[in-house]
Amino acid sequence: MAGAEKSSAVEFEQDPAGTLAITPGFRLSSVDPESTPGYPGAKADGGSLLAAQDSRLKELQEKLFAEGKFGSNKRILLILQAMDTAGKGGIVGHVVGAMDPQGVQLTAFKAPTDEEKSHDFLWRIEKAVPGAGMVGVFDRSHYEDVLIHRVHGWADDAELARRYGAINDFEARLAAQGTAIVKVMLHISRDEQKKRLLARLDDPAKHWKYSPGDVQERAHWDAYMDAFQKVFDKTSTAVAPWHVVPANKKWYARIAVQGLLIAALEGLSLEWPEAEFDVAAERERVAAS
Amino acid sequence: MAGAEKSSAVEFEQDPAGTLAITPGFRLSSVDPESTPGYPGAKADGGSLLAAQDSRLKELQEKLFAEGKFGSNKRILLILQAMDTAGKGGIVGHVVGAMDPQGVQLTAFKAPTDEEKSHDFLWRIEKAVPGAGMVGVFDRSHYEDVLIHRVHGWADDAELARRYGAINDFEARLAAQGTAIVKVMLHISRDEQKKRLLARLDDPAKHWKYSPGDVQERAHWDAYMDAFQKVFDKTSTAVAPWHVVPANKKWYARIAVQGLLIAALEGLSLEWPEAEFDVAAERERVAAS
Repeated sequence: MAGAEKSSAVEFEQDPAGTLAITPGFRLSSVDPESTPGYPGAKADGGSLLAAQDSRLKELQEKLFAEGKFGSNKRILLILQAMDTAGKGGIVGHVVGAMDPQGVQLTAFKAPTDEEKSHDFLWRIEKAVPGAGMVGVFDRSHYEDVLIHRVHGWADDAELARRYGAINDFEARLAAQGTAIVKVMLHISRDEQKKRLLARLDDPAKHWKYSPGDVQERAHWDAYMDAFQKVFDKTSTAVAPWHVVPANKKWYARIAVQGLLIAALEGLSLEWPEAEFDVAAERERVAAS
Repeated sequence: MAGAEKSSAVEFEQDPAGTLAITPGFRLSSVDPESTPGYPGAKADGGSLLAAQDSRLKELQEKLFAEGKFGSNKRILLILQAMDTAGKGGIVGHVVGAMDPQGVQLTAFKAPTDEEKSHDFLWRIEKAVPGAGMVGVFDRSHYEDVLIHRVHGWADDAELARRYGAINDFEARLAAQGTAIVKVMLHISRDEQKKRLLARLDDPAKHWKYSPGDVQERAHWDAYMDAFQKVFDKTSTAVAPWHVVPANKKWYARIAVQGLLIAALEGLSLEWPEAEFDVAAERERVAAS
């Protein structure tokens, strides 16, 4: 994160991509949702860093978009998974929202429709993958089909095994086509979720975000953690590693995901496209027009 | 624009919706692209107002989104038309970009594909209209089919007349379905366009935005102004009036469009959806979970 726009905000001591990507033998249970890996600052510092890095993120995204207009295949796919209230919406609003909307392709996956259910689980996902030059964002994703389906037994072990394999094939194909895949699980604690659900109930402006079904899913907390662990074991690959972002502190989760996006964009070695016309000649044409 | 979040920034003296909506007998040639109708402040004031009103715009958009989740049909469609370099991209980045991406549905219409050309001109438009609760944004639109087509003679007078009628029918249908339509022409002067094209040529980071074809279209400036005048004469209706926003000053165009969006949202009388559950009972369920 070097560059002309380097700010005076407190920065990460270690690159979040390196710090948060999981490695073989990773155990979700070993991550403290209250922690702020790699970041020495406090909440106010995090807020300053988020604002300070917005322009860097914006510039990189614009370069990606510009390259896409000139035949580059590069693109980003950010996949967000989490328990309810973990802050996916905040990431979309505060991190993704800083980029130019014309270069962002956001899809929020809900419970599948009847038509979607009549197809393989990747059918609706494939239709939403980002175009060249775009930053695609999945708010939930194909991982629902190996998370909630596993927790509720809607798919048996053989089917789950098939899906893990299909996901790895699918993501490998995206990566080979020029997609940098950033997979993020926002990790909150069970107690933190309770606090956030109660806060929603305390604020009439947030009642619309609450559903009585949320408490039912919450009862399966441990089974969800097991299902996430399985996802990490089976689908964290070299081309599409998982990152577990402690998310009890919303401000940390935001700078962490912002850092992951910046690192992914920087990894694409983006350049402004060179003019395919004679600049001096065009200057004269415009001046004379 | 009253409310708790009223800021100390210099505000509009007259509501931009009332000031900028065109009225019968309107002449585009009477609008000074350098002017700042209804706004007494200068550039720095405009920048402060834009920032100060962001949270108001965000809150209204979230209410719209929330209502949409609970069965409301309300939605917004912002249609942006302009000559090249007039600042549509800046409006998308700086005004639209302040809203939550999950509630915004942006479509940039380019030259139609062969498949799109094989259908009526409204076919691709219909597919992009905003869903309930969404703010749809058209960067260019069905108006291209009565602007560039008129300028280049790709449609004759009878066909153009058919299209004006089809557009009015289409927009009336959207309005009847709950869509508040905000049509905006960003109006720059021919000299201002020249300056901006030269500025693009002077900055290698902006070469990708320049195309030699821009100078060719520029040669048809007067014909474009005539085509816009015709559009205003034929398609400014009670349910979908046109607004002409002077845009030589980018900062003014941004606060003007922001003001139009806020007025349109306020006109929808939005409320946070009421809880469809027993709040106290849910509090106890969550606390016990």
